[in-house]
Amino acid sequence: MRFTSETSSDGVSEQLFTLGEIPGVLWTRQGATGTRPLILMGHGGGQHKKAPGILARARRFVAECDFAVVAVDVPGHGDRPKDEEYHRIATENQARVEAGAELAPLIAAFQALVARQTVPEWQAVLDAVQQLEHVGAGPVGYWGVSLGCGLGVPFVAAEPRVRAAVLGLGGALASADAATRITVPVEFLLQWDDERVPRDQGLALFDALASAEKTLHANPGRHGEIPAFELDSSLRFFVRHLT
Amino acid sequence: MRFTSETSSDGVSEQLFTLGEIPGVLWTRQGATGTRPLILMGHGGGQHKKAPGILARARRFVAECDFAVVAVDVPGHGDRPKDEEYHRIATENQARVEAGAELAPLIAAFQALVARQTVPEWQAVLDAVQQLEHVGAGPVGYWGVSLGCGLGVPFVAAEPRVRAAVLGLGGALASADAATRITVPVEFLLQWDDERVPRDQGLALFDALASAEKTLHANPGRHGEIPAFELDSSLRFFVRHLT
Repeated sequence: MRFTSETSSDGVSEQLFTLGEIPGVLWTRQGATGTRPLILMGHGGGQHKKAPGILARARRFVAECDFAVVAVDVPGHGDRPKDEEYHRIATENQARVEAGAELAPLIAAFQALVARQTVPEWQAVLDAVQQLEHVGAGPVGYWGVSLGCGLGVPFVAAEPRVRAAVLGLGGALASADAATRITVPVEFLLQWDDERVPRDQGLALFDALASAEKTLHANPGRHGEIPAFELDSSLRFFVRHLT
Repeated sequence: MRFTSETSSDGVSEQLFTLGEIPGVLWTRQGATGTRPLILMGHGGGQHKKAPGILARARRFVAECDFAVVAVDVPGHGDRPKDEEYHRIATENQARVEAGAELAPLIAAFQALVARQTVPEWQAVLDAVQQLEHVGAGPVGYWGVSLGCGLGVPFVAAEPRVRAAVLGLGGALASADAATRITVPVEFLLQWDDERVPRDQGLALFDALASAEKTLHANPGRHGEIPAFELDSSLRFFVRHLT
């Protein structure tokens, strides 16, 4: 793990790093020492580790809860090179949708493929970050919607360090099987008028989660229109389960 | 409006009253003076105005938010005399269910009938309570699940003073039509394994609400098993919309 820059603003420190080929960012309270809860955040499709939605949430998790937050670029996103295979598949999918194919199953298959790479990558990120003195091996949470849900469900299912997860904007086609292996508390965000994930697919993914405590928050609006008050709720959810 | 008793504990004052034939209870902060937000609470079937679920919520709304809270007995419940017509219908329904009839449509028809009486009753209660010096004509919220939803949906649809409502454990059969006339913010509670309200009926009622801001909170468990953290959420919802 190699740190490449460190800046801070409003009491939040931001450290860019690379872990092997993976570019990442770690946020902690400025001057933080000792073990604290850690949130791993998975960004959406076409976004990156410092996309506005990630950044805004990460800063609040740090500033209001004193958590550490880590996010890395998904293959083919952000500061990572174009992945030829993924790029080819995405281009083919685009052509199929234009020819009338259904979008959801194509997204699902693609996310399942990428998850085979990101699950071990994110586990390596946890290993590395938890060795830092100002993060340590405390409780871990996961936050990710859309692509961050498609990749997050198999990750949370595979990684016993994760004790609570906010997921959403994803459907059962992609990850119902992995969802049946998730038993930690989940807050699941669903957009009632999601143009990318059919409503019944989102409900079916929530249904598939094996967690004894899981809570579905559904709000009107399209895929990208999660209301601001849900961030307050995510924050309280993590405080409840990680502290 | 005639007050029949006043007690207080832990800083919460409880005043029993009758308004015509309607027995009710008003909770306010002890020593409260002046106008404040008011929550009208509708109890569940077979319950009454001081059922444990009502009492626990009312006390928190008062103690933590300084709201006034009012609840009255639904006809045939609590301190009200048995209503012969309702009792006859309930008995007939019971017999039909035992003979194999579906429960949900019977409940729906019954609640629609009772609502024709409770909507004007509750409006009269608001009129009376808002004239009290320690309540006044401030913003009004409604909280009610199960029977409190079946009666609450037509009430909220009819009563322009209500600015926000927590509803749930109800289905579209009972009140989808009235729901299309509700435009205020709603937090809607659904129990994923509700044995009384079929899941698709609950989702359809949420769907029918015309509110631009509505949020569905679904949790695993049976009809009576709303998790405790939802009360925290109801509280924040009312604070957001009534203060």
